[in-house]
Amino acid sequence: MEIFVYQKGNHFVEEGFSAEQLPELLANAGNLVWVDIEAPTKEDEKILSDVFHFHSLTIEDARETRNQPKVEAFADYLFFIVHGIKVETNSKNFVTKELDGYIGKNFVVTFHHENFLSIDTVKRQIRNSPYVCGRGADYLLHQILDELVDLYIPVVDEFDDAINEIEERIFRTKTPNDEILEEILNLKRSVARLRRVTSKQLAVLYRIAHGEFQLIEESHLPFFRDVHDHLQRVSDLAESYRDLVSGLLDIQFNVVSNRTNEIVKVLTIFSAIILPLSLIAGIYGMNFENMPELKTRNGYFFTLGFMFFIAVGLLFYFWRKGWIFEKDDEKAERK
Amino acid sequence: MEIFVYQKGNHFVEEGFSAEQLPELLANAGNLVWVDIEAPTKEDEKILSDVFHFHSLTIEDARETRNQPKVEAFADYLFFIVHGIKVETNSKNFVTKELDGYIGKNFVVTFHHENFLSIDTVKRQIRNSPYVCGRGADYLLHQILDELVDLYIPVVDEFDDAINEIEERIFRTKTPNDEILEEILNLKRSVARLRRVTSKQLAVLYRIAHGEFQLIEESHLPFFRDVHDHLQRVSDLAESYRDLVSGLLDIQFNVVSNRTNEIVKVLTIFSAIILPLSLIAGIYGMNFENMPELKTRNGYFFTLGFMFFIAVGLLFYFWRKGWIFEKDDEKAERK
Amino acid sequence: MEIFVYQKGNHFVEEGFSAEQLPELLANAGNLVWVDIEAPTKEDEKILSDVFHFHSLTIEDARETRNQPKVEAFADYLFFIVHGIKVETNSKNFVTKELDGYIGKNFVVTFHHENFLSIDTVKRQIRNSPYVCGRGADYLLHQILDELVDLYIPVVDEFDDAINEIEERIFRTKTPNDEILEEILNLKRSVARLRRVTSKQLAVLYRIAHGEFQLIEESHLPFFRDVHDHLQRVSDLAESYRDLVSGLLDIQFNVVSNRTNEIVKVLTIFSAIILPLSLIAGIYGMNFENMPELKTRNGYFFTLGFMFFIAVGLLFYFWRKGWIFEKDDEKAERK
Amino acid sequence: MEIFVYQKGNHFVEEGFSAEQLPELLANAGNLVWVDIEAPTKEDEKILSDVFHFHSLTIEDARETRNQPKVEAFADYLFFIVHGIKVETNSKNFVTKELDGYIGKNFVVTFHHENFLSIDTVKRQIRNSPYVCGRGADYLLHQILDELVDLYIPVVDEFDDAINEIEERIFRTKTPNDEILEEILNLKRSVARLRRVTSKQLAVLYRIAHGEFQLIEESHLPFFRDVHDHLQRVSDLAESYRDLVSGLLDIQFNVVSNRTNEIVKVLTIFSAIILPLSLIAGIYGMNFENMPELKTRNGYFFTLGFMFFIAVGLLFYFWRKGWIFEKDDEKAERK
Amino acid sequence: MEIFVYQKGNHFVEEGFSAEQLPELLANAGNLVWVDIEAPTKEDEKILSDVFHFHSLTIEDARETRNQPKVEAFADYLFFIVHGIKVETNSKNFVTKELDGYIGKNFVVTFHHENFLSIDTVKRQIRNSPYVCGRGADYLLHQILDELVDLYIPVVDEFDDAINEIEERIFRTKTPNDEILEEILNLKRSVARLRRVTSKQLAVLYRIAHGEFQLIEESHLPFFRDVHDHLQRVSDLAESYRDLVSGLLDIQFNVVSNRTNEIVKVLTIFSAIILPLSLIAGIYGMNFENMPELKTRNGYFFTLGFMFFIAVGLLFYFWRKGWIFEKDDEKAERK
Repeated sequence: MEIFVYQKGNHFVEEGFSAEQLPELLANAGNLVWVDIEAPTKEDEKILSDVFHFHSLTIEDARETRNQPKVEAFADYLFFIVHGIKVETNSKNFVTKELDGYIGKNFVVTFHHENFLSIDTVKRQIRNSPYVCGRGADYLLHQILDELVDLYIPVVDEFDDAINEIEERIFRTKTPNDEILEEILNLKRSVARLRRVTSKQLAVLYRIAHGEFQLIEESHLPFFRDVHDHLQRVSDLAESYRDLVSGLLDIQFNVVSNRTNEIVKVLTIFSAIILPLSLIAGIYGMNFENMPELKTRNGYFFTLGFMFFIAVGLLFYFWRKGWIFEKDDEKAERK
Repeated sequence: MEIFVYQKGNHFVEEGFSAEQLPELLANAGNLVWVDIEAPTKEDEKILSDVFHFHSLTIEDARETRNQPKVEAFADYLFFIVHGIKVETNSKNFVTKELDGYIGKNFVVTFHHENFLSIDTVKRQIRNSPYVCGRGADYLLHQILDELVDLYIPVVDEFDDAINEIEERIFRTKTPNDEILEEILNLKRSVARLRRVTSKQLAVLYRIAHGEFQLIEESHLPFFRDVHDHLQRVSDLAESYRDLVSGLLDIQFNVVSNRTNEIVKVLTIFSAIILPLSLIAGIYGMNFENMPELKTRNGYFFTLGFMFFIAVGLLFYFWRKGWIFEKDDEKAERK
Repeated sequence: MEIFVYQKGNHFVEEGFSAEQLPELLANAGNLVWVDIEAPTKEDEKILSDVFHFHSLTIEDARETRNQPKVEAFADYLFFIVHGIKVETNSKNFVTKELDGYIGKNFVVTFHHENFLSIDTVKRQIRNSPYVCGRGADYLLHQILDELVDLYIPVVDEFDDAINEIEERIFRTKTPNDEILEEILNLKRSVARLRRVTSKQLAVLYRIAHGEFQLIEESHLPFFRDVHDHLQRVSDLAESYRDLVSGLLDIQFNVVSNRTNEIVKVLTIFSAIILPLSLIAGIYGMNFENMPELKTRNGYFFTLGFMFFIAVGLLFYFWRKGWIFEKDDEKAERK
Repeated sequence: MEIFVYQKGNHFVEEGFSAEQLPELLANAGNLVWVDIEAPTKEDEKILSDVFHFHSLTIEDARETRNQPKVEAFADYLFFIVHGIKVETNSKNFVTKELDGYIGKNFVVTFHHENFLSIDTVKRQIRNSPYVCGRGADYLLHQILDELVDLYIPVVDEFDDAINEIEERIFRTKTPNDEILEEILNLKRSVARLRRVTSKQLAVLYRIAHGEFQLIEESHLPFFRDVHDHLQRVSDLAESYRDLVSGLLDIQFNVVSNRTNEIVKVLTIFSAIILPLSLIAGIYGMNFENMPELKTRNGYFFTLGFMFFIAVGLLFYFWRKGWIFEKDDEKAERK
Repeated sequence: MEIFVYQKGNHFVEEGFSAEQLPELLANAGNLVWVDIEAPTKEDEKILSDVFHFHSLTIEDARETRNQPKVEAFADYLFFIVHGIKVETNSKNFVTKELDGYIGKNFVVTFHHENFLSIDTVKRQIRNSPYVCGRGADYLLHQILDELVDLYIPVVDEFDDAINEIEERIFRTKTPNDEILEEILNLKRSVARLRRVTSKQLAVLYRIAHGEFQLIEESHLPFFRDVHDHLQRVSDLAESYRDLVSGLLDIQFNVVSNRTNEIVKVLTIFSAIILPLSLIAGIYGMNFENMPELKTRNGYFFTLGFMFFIAVGLLFYFWRKGWIFEKDDEKAERK
């Protein structure tokens, strides 16, 4: 647990307070108190109920880590749950982390079980330029949400790359394999998760940004709208990726059926040319005593010639059908 | 029928009353009366009309068991229908059970044809800590709904497992079979049922949780919102499962077409290599009298050599096409 | 045309009036007059305009039979169009029938070109227990709509059976045939029609049931809501059938591609095993003079043995690939 | 340009006025003036700006013919754009035509580049029964829209036929061909166009029919609602055709895959029966010196018998698999 | 940076002012000042904050070029982001460009990193006919948006062509290839992008056109509605292209499966006719000593005749099945 206190007019942020000093610090309306609780202990949880007297349901929510984003207004504070995001190293996947928090007239409480890069960033910011705190608890909240949402952008960029890569591989691969299908499936799930996470979070930001809560000063609403718009862009992209990803399965399927078509064509051409020739060879391999052709002088050579003629004829027929050596006019038109 | 009575200020819940005592118990505004009717008899139904004077339509609804979740407000009581859920043992399926009920100023009536685990749990709770009843009839209702909704969560978890398992089997199976299709179909139906059940129930909880009914004290609304949010999560998951399950059919189809592609490839390679060789053998099996090659000394060995050469040539050709022994550069790129 | 008159306080319903008596009967506010016009004649239509003075557009609507369900309020009466339904005997299909009607302070007019089972039922009811009429014109309307909507339920049950039956047949059929496709298509159309009919009708019932019209007494609204809820269930089921039916096409397609996969596998295994053996036979069928093997003593038997060896080897290869005699571990895992 | 003037109380409609008389005619509030401008000249356009002083944007819209349906209210007139429809002869296609118009207290202006059957019909009507004009400019507008919308109905009926015809052909055709695909595609486009056109137009009619504009007398609203309902039916049908048409592609695809399955089955049965027999023939065609069977007396006949036995065995195997002569129990069940 | 100043009553627009003169020019309420900043420098950005005192968030937005269209109202100015569009030469693709801007009582500021054809057009317009400026800042804004939206129309027309071309190629191509798939995929992405861009922009124009902002004079709203309607048409077309494009994949797939069906048919017919003949030849190629037929005089010719008979019989069989030479009645029906 870290406690940051900024007193109006000061040029610095004080740190290093203990939990016991909190009631006193909060009592001074001129203070802005930020309590950041990471990896909370039982004692930390007690502060929520005993010092801040937050509603028991919200404390329960904070304790768990499977909640959806939401914001709820109470008499003199807001409770919010938002989700941060992180691309996993060595993988195209991402994880979400729950950040619970409260904001009141002169305090912000953040409560999280995992480390948040965005919160660390904001801590650094207020140490360097404490004036951020001077604009009130709601502006500090904005700062945290802003950093948190900005980390969504690399995730969608990652997706864009992943989709492009799979697409390329679909077209390049000669031997259809299940690996691509599995990757498409994983991507589909990830995109669905991203959509679910962002859509709930958007609703939360929308409510905050459109002046539903009196604790957010009206002149700060544009800043929250800005955060909302950033996440909206992420959400729109996730939505469009959904279409693209489920289109990939269709493409993959089309490519495989193109490949199969090609294979069957090879099979057909081979069979259709060689089977008739084999029949002829078979006929002249029969052991009838009376087969006049067999005795002719050039029968063998005529037969070979006839076979050659049939083969050429069938090749011509398949070429006309456009199955081999794509016809020139088609190629020409293609350009 | 079981009757529980909690008198304000007491530290215990009284039980063991008979139906005849009900009017008297209800007349005392300081009492909270919970009438739980399981597997109702004709006499039990009469209590609804003769003691409580509930609307005849609601009693008809309670008698049946094919109703949708709903909540309806009457002058001094609410009538509600909600659905409990249970995963069936030895199967991935679930069953829903209808719970009808009424709530008034100082009473709760629950009416159900089947046993409800959640109701048993609440009974145990109020015996252990009767203070739950001290917060009024609406809080007792919340307690029941909370337990009832919590039982939905194992059902969706079960689905998650089932989907993953089928997915794995799709990729592992070498011989496409209808069993997987049947399972996907069953899963699809179950997910559709879950979506239908939860969406109606959500609407009921939403109306209760957003202060539409005066019988629910405003300070208790957050508790109902909490129940609503839990079910919302179930519903969102069911919605996302829907996408996943109908995606499974596509995946299965893609896998089968990959398999077919592979099989046709084997057929083509075998045919394309052996048919030409057979033709050559056939030609030299012809019985023409004048076939000079037949008389040469090494004709046979040259012919075998020629066959070998053709076979190798075709194998090379198919390898170039990427049909056999996937080309190294492709494999390399894949990593 | 049949006229039913119930006078407040009476214990019976009078019948057998003629059109001429209508104005007089209607003038008595204590009367509830129900005019049921089946297979209307020109004179019947005149009553609508000359006795009741209904809006000309509504009379035009009543004359036609291709209208959508709707309800329209006029100064002192409501005009409504609803659709009844009937499962056709000897078929899984259903037909809808249009019922036009008017309701005023003390009258109900029903106007239909075809016989309605539900209207006959209500006639029987009011003859047996005339008190139904004592609750007013709106309650009588409710009675008619209630019976009419109840007849929708067997239709959806029929669909449920039909879908299950087709599904079973899809999996059972070994020879894919177009019949199943045609039936799926028919079912799809029927379900689409049912959805269209119910969705419009729901809108009508919703407007009536939610107090939009003053002619419906507020205390009767729960009864209309009840009718609405019943139809809602039908509509929800129709909606879910839609998904199921269009899923059937996918299933059928998957099954056919499984079948094709199986067939191609048989073809491939046969060809791949027999073609090489035929080649060997062909080689030793060549007529070269110098083929040392032919002269060996056991050449023939060695060759047969070699063929057998190749056949077994290929069978083993295909078994390893999982194409024949599904591998044991797979079977085991499946359980 | 044609000008029709109806003076209140008259029993006839006057025609044959010139543009110069318009201001005078309009000044008389007792007149209803209908100016119909077909294939407008520059002078006609000037009337809109100089006589009627309509907003310049509306005149620009009227000049063009690629506008969407819309209605816009100005201080003392309404501007509307609606689309008429016409089935093209010798084709299943339809064309839409734009009708621009204005309606004021005592005038209606219709402005169109192409001939409208519906407008001609209304002209005939008002000549025969001028009382139509007696109900005011809005009623005249209703008359025009009513006729215009009625012409949509043959178009949707045409579609119904077209879909049925294609469907039948899909099932009947033995040789899958691209023609059907092209027709389905064309139909799909047409239906999409119809949906687009009707949905915009519905919005226009909805706004008019629901009393948004004061120029439409309240007692005339039911008439506009009637027109709206007619178009709604067209739109609903178009919507349902959409589903049907895109379902046709699935059906076509299923039928083709059924056909392919059948073809592959024939191929497999032929190959699987004849290849083994050919192998046997090949074996006994080998030229080994020591092949004892060849010298037996009935070897040939035993071999033929053996071949026959194998053929029958394989036929039986395929019959058991249900690939030939569908098994009787299956056929029985099907009925 | 270019500055245009129009003083009420003047017949010309003054140019050539420097940034230093701006405060003075703006102070004169009779002036309309348009500041167009292209490819902004640091100094240009400073003007936004130091001269105009715009909100810092909007200036940040203006600096970036990855923003979504939006409009935001501040005390005495509006900030807007819209996207212009340009078809790329030598490609069917398009690029979008961001235009940021502000509008106040007597000024318009446009801020863009790339050149805008539409802005150049408006500059030319106001030089030629300065009266455009006389209608105020909002009308000038309308002029810019109007030109900007008009450039969307060639883009959708381009799409229409592209879709038609691909469609034709799908049907014409005999050898299914991946190129078409890649083009469909690209088209799909482009259409999705266009939809995304237009839908956001429509929302912006809707808000402006429906009188949400006081800075837009009410009498100018029809002009903005006009712009909105134009973009609406683009958006509707993009929406309908989406359906068409994703339908192309289905069509392509159907065409490929038709092609495969045809190929398999050829293979089957060849195999099924020649394999039995080969078997016969093989049988008479066996070396049994006792094969009576071999010694008959015309055995060879009878055998040839028998082969011919079988070939004709099978051809007839396949013709009956409709696999070759489509049956006449079918062809007839097709017309």
